Amino acid sequence: MALLEKLNEVLRTQALLGNTVEILTWDQEVCMPRAGVPHRAAIVGTIVGLLHKKLIEEVLPLLREAQESAELSEEQKHSVRILLEEAEPAEKVPPKLVQAFSEASSLAQAAWVEAREKSDFSVFAPHLEKLVQLGREKAAALTYAEEPYEALLRLYERSVTPAEVETLFAEVRPFLIETIRACEGSILEGLQGPALSLSAPQQRDLVETVLRQLGYDLRRGRIDISAHPFCSGFNPDDVRITIRIFEEDLTMALGSAMHEMGHALYEQGLAREPIGWPITMAASLSIHESQSRFWENHVGLSLPFWEYLYEQIFPKYNPSWLQAYSPLTLARRVNKIQPHLIRIQSDEVSYHLHILLRFELERALINGDLSISDLPAAWNEKVHTYLGLTVPNDAQGVLQDIHWSMGNFGYFPTYSLGSFYAAQLAAALTEQYPDWESNLRSGNAQIPLDWMRRHIHAHGKMYDSKTLCEKATGSSLSAKHFIQYIRQKVGLIYEGLSVPLPT
Amino acid sequence: MALLEKLNEVLRTQALLGNTVEILTWDQEVCMPRAGVPHRAAIVGTIVGLLHKKLIEEVLPLLREAQESAELSEEQKHSVRILLEEAEPAEKVPPKLVQAFSEASSLAQAAWVEAREKSDFSVFAPHLEKLVQLGREKAAALTYAEEPYEALLRLYERSVTPAEVETLFAEVRPFLIETIRACEGSILEGLQGPALSLSAPQQRDLVETVLRQLGYDLRRGRIDISAHPFCSGFNPDDVRITIRIFEEDLTMALGSAMHEMGHALYEQGLAREPIGWPITMAASLSIHESQSRFWENHVGLSLPFWEYLYEQIFPKYNPSWLQAYSPLTLARRVNKIQPHLIRIQSDEVSYHLHILLRFELERALINGDLSISDLPAAWNEKVHTYLGLTVPNDAQGVLQDIHWSMGNFGYFPTYSLGSFYAAQLAAALTEQYPDWESNLRSGNAQIPLDWMRRHIHAHGKMYDSKTLCEKATGSSLSAKHFIQYIRQKVGLIYEGLSVPLPT
Repeated sequence: MALLEKLNEVLRTQALLGNTVEILTWDQEVCMPRAGVPHRAAIVGTIVGLLHKKLIEEVLPLLREAQESAELSEEQKHSVRILLEEAEPAEKVPPKLVQAFSEASSLAQAAWVEAREKSDFSVFAPHLEKLVQLGREKAAALTYAEEPYEALLRLYERSVTPAEVETLFAEVRPFLIETIRACEGSILEGLQGPALSLSAPQQRDLVETVLRQLGYDLRRGRIDISAHPFCSGFNPDDVRITIRIFEEDLTMALGSAMHEMGHALYEQGLAREPIGWPITMAASLSIHESQSRFWENHVGLSLPFWEYLYEQIFPKYNPSWLQAYSPLTLARRVNKIQPHLIRIQSDEVSYHLHILLRFELERALINGDLSISDLPAAWNEKVHTYLGLTVPNDAQGVLQDIHWSMGNFGYFPTYSLGSFYAAQLAAALTEQYPDWESNLRSGNAQIPLDWMRRHIHAHGKMYDSKTLCEKATGSSLSAKHFIQYIRQKVGLIYEGLSVPLPT
Repeated sequence: MALLEKLNEVLRTQALLGNTVEILTWDQEVCMPRAGVPHRAAIVGTIVGLLHKKLIEEVLPLLREAQESAELSEEQKHSVRILLEEAEPAEKVPPKLVQAFSEASSLAQAAWVEAREKSDFSVFAPHLEKLVQLGREKAAALTYAEEPYEALLRLYERSVTPAEVETLFAEVRPFLIETIRACEGSILEGLQGPALSLSAPQQRDLVETVLRQLGYDLRRGRIDISAHPFCSGFNPDDVRITIRIFEEDLTMALGSAMHEMGHALYEQGLAREPIGWPITMAASLSIHESQSRFWENHVGLSLPFWEYLYEQIFPKYNPSWLQAYSPLTLARRVNKIQPHLIRIQSDEVSYHLHILLRFELERALINGDLSISDLPAAWNEKVHTYLGLTVPNDAQGVLQDIHWSMGNFGYFPTYSLGSFYAAQLAAALTEQYPDWESNLRSGNAQIPLDWMRRHIHAHGKMYDSKTLCEKATGSSLSAKHFIQYIRQKVGLIYEGLSVPLPT
C-alpha cells in the first residue's frame, strides 16, 4: 500500500476510535445509569489504551516517514507537521508517569469532592501536592525553554508562552478592577420585576426555538439536560449540546445554551473529510472558547438579541414579562457587573480576574514558587485584591473548581484567551459588516455565522490560534478589543458611564 | 505472560469492544440525529473490523493453545470449547464472502423498505435472490450434515437441527390450527368498554412503576421510547430497554415493556466477571427469548397480573377503567385469540403459525426447493392454510418482516423455541412453587425471578439451550408444555372452552 493511503487509513481509524470515546463519554454524562461507571471506565480505558498503542506503533512512525516523502504535497506535509506536534507529547511522557498521573488524579478527584463538601482544604492538600509534583515531572519530560509551567500550558494552547499570557493580563488587569469599581458606584435602573421563571419543558422548547433560529442545525444535533453543560462534536453531522435548567431563572439555561451552541456551530462547520487530518479538527481550546464566548456574550448578551427575545420569543412564553421590562432593562439584568466568589457565576468582567488569579497561582505552584500549604491564603488574598471580596470558606474559594483535581494545570488561561479572541474577531466582523449586530433584532445571525464559518471553521487546525487570529483579523492577538467591547457595553448598560482606558 | 493471563486480557478486550458496538447501536437507535448515520457506520465498521482481526489473529490461536494447556482447569477448558465453537464460523467464512454478504444485505434492506412501501415484491426479489445465493455459499463454507439450512440455523441456535425444529412444529401445528378454529366459534364477553388510552408520559410512568415492582433494577437500567422496542445489555450494571407507546392503547407499551424486561432481567442476572468468558454471556437467542416470553406472556398476560394492575396500578391512572372492566375482562382483551396477517400483531397462538410458515419457506429457499419467483404465492397459500386468512398484498404478506432483507435466514425459529422453552420453564417453576402465579396478584414476582436467576441466568453460556433446559426442568425440550399452557389459558379466558389435545 502506498504511504499516503496507509497514512489515511491509520489517521481515519485513530479519529474514529477517538470519536468513540467521545460518544461513550456523552452517554455516560447524559444517559448511563450510575451503576455503569466501573464497566464504562473499563471500556474507555481499553479504547484509550488501544489509541495510545496505535499512536506510538503506527501513527508516529508513519507521520515521520511522511514528513520526508515525495508522495505528499506541501500542504499535506504541513498537516503532518501539525499532527506530529500534537502527537509527540504522548511519546515524551513515559507510560509509568502517565499511569501515575491517571491514578493520582482519580484519587484526587474523589478527595476534592469530599474536601469541597466539608469545605476542608486539608483533605485535598496531599493529593494536590502529589499532582503538582507529577505535573513538574511531566513538564520536565515534555521539556521547556523558560519555566516548567510553559510545558503544561502548551498542552492546551500551543501558540503562547506564560510570559505572553502574563503580558495580556497585565494589559487588562487595571481596567477590569477599575471597571468593577466604577460599576459598583453606579445604579442600574429597571431591574426590579418578576423572576424570569419558566417550567423546564418550556425552557427547553424556548431554547430550541432560539438556537434553531440562530443557525444550530438540529438535524445534525440535539439538546439534552445535564448538571454541567457541555458540547460534544463527534462529527459535523452529529454535534450535541447539553444545557442546565433552573426553573426559577431562564437566563441560566439561555446563557449555557448560547455558550454551548457556539462550540456546536464550530463543530458543525468543520470539514468532514479527510477524517483524521487537521482540516477536520478544531484549531485549539482557545479558539473553541472564542466561538462559545462570541455567541454567549457578543450575541447572547447584546441589546439587539434581547430585543429579538422580547419581541419574537417572550410573547409566546410569558407575556407578563413584557409589561414588567423593556429590552434594555432585560439586557441590564443579564449584563450587571458584580463580582462573585464563584467563577462560573461571575459577570464578564470579574470572570477574567478569576482566571488571572488561577493562572498566577498554578504557575507559581508548578514553577515551585508557592507551596500547597500557602495556597488557600494566597487565593483569599488575591480574591480580596482583585475582586474586593472576602472568601468565607475554602468551598467558595480554592476548592470551587474541578480542574486542578484532574491535574489540568495550564487549562484556565484558555478561557480568557477565548474571550480575547472572541472580542478581536467580533471587532473585525463589525468593521466588515457594521450591521451584523442590529440584524440580531430580527433573530438573524447569518452574517456572524457565515463570517465565522469562513474565517475560523473552514481552516480547521491548519493554523495555530495566533496565526488564525492574524489571518482572520489582520492583527495579532491583543486584549484591546476586549477592553473596547467592555467599555462600549458598560456605556450602554450603565447609561453613559465611561470607564477610563488603561494607561 | 502466562497463557491464562493473556487469554483473560484478550477475551476482556474483545468483550469490551463488543459492548462498545452495542452502546453505539443503542445510541444510534435512541439518541443519534439521523444525519449521523454515515459517520456512525464508519465507526462501527472500524470497530467490527478490529474485532474480526483480533478474533482471527489473537483470540483463536490463544483458544487453541489453551485447549491443550495444563494451565487451565477442566471448567476453563469447557469454556474454551464453547468460545471456539462460537468463534470458528468467523474463520470458516472467507472475508470476501462476508464482504459480499454485508454489501448485498445493505442494498437489500434499502430495496425492502421501498418494496414494502410500494407493496411490490419485484423490487425486492433480485436482492433476495442474491442473498439466498450468498446464504447457500455461506452454508457451504460453514459445512453441514444434512442440508444447507442447517448451517445457517446453527448460527442462531447451536443445539438444534432443522429436522428437530420440524418435529416440534409437527407436534403443535394441528393444535394451533384447532385452537384458532375453536376460539373463533366462541364469544368473549365483557370486552366492550373504553379504550385503555393514556398520555405518553403517563404510560411511561406506569410502565416504570410496574417494571420496578416486578424486579427490573432501574439503578442499573433505563427505559426509553423507540419505534421498535429492544433491549441492550452492555453489562449487568447497564441494561436498557426501549418501549413503543401508542397513546390510544396502553397494552402496546405494557406488552413491549414486559417482553423487553424479560430480556433485561436476564442480562442483569448474568455474572459480571471474568469479562469475556461464557459464564458472563447469555446462553442463546432461544433462551433469551424464553425469558422475554416468560415475562411477556406467562406473567404479563396472566389473570393475577391483571388483578394486580386493576387493584394497585389503574386506580392511580384512570379509575374509570375500573367501572368498565373487571380483571377478567381486561385479561380477556389482551388474550383474545384472533389470527392477524401481521406476525408482530398476532396473538400467542397464531404467532407460531407465522413462524412455522417462515421456517418452512426459508428452509426451502436455502435448500433450493423453492424459487424466489414462487415465494409470494407460497406465502399466501400457507397463510390461508394455517391462519385462514387471505393476503391482500405483499406488504401485508411476504414483505412484512425485515429479517430476510438482512440475510438472517435461520433466525425465525428461535422465536418459537423461546416460547416453547418459556412454557417448559414455567411448568417446572409451577411444579416447585405452585403459588408463584397467585403471588402476582400483589405485584410480587420474587419467586419466578429468583428461580430464573438460579436455573437460567446463573449459568450464562456454560450449557447449550437443550442442556440448560434439561438441567432446569429435568426433561428435554418438548412442545407439550406450551400446548398445556395454551389449553389452560383458553379454558380460563374462553370460559371453559376445551381445546382437544393433539393426537
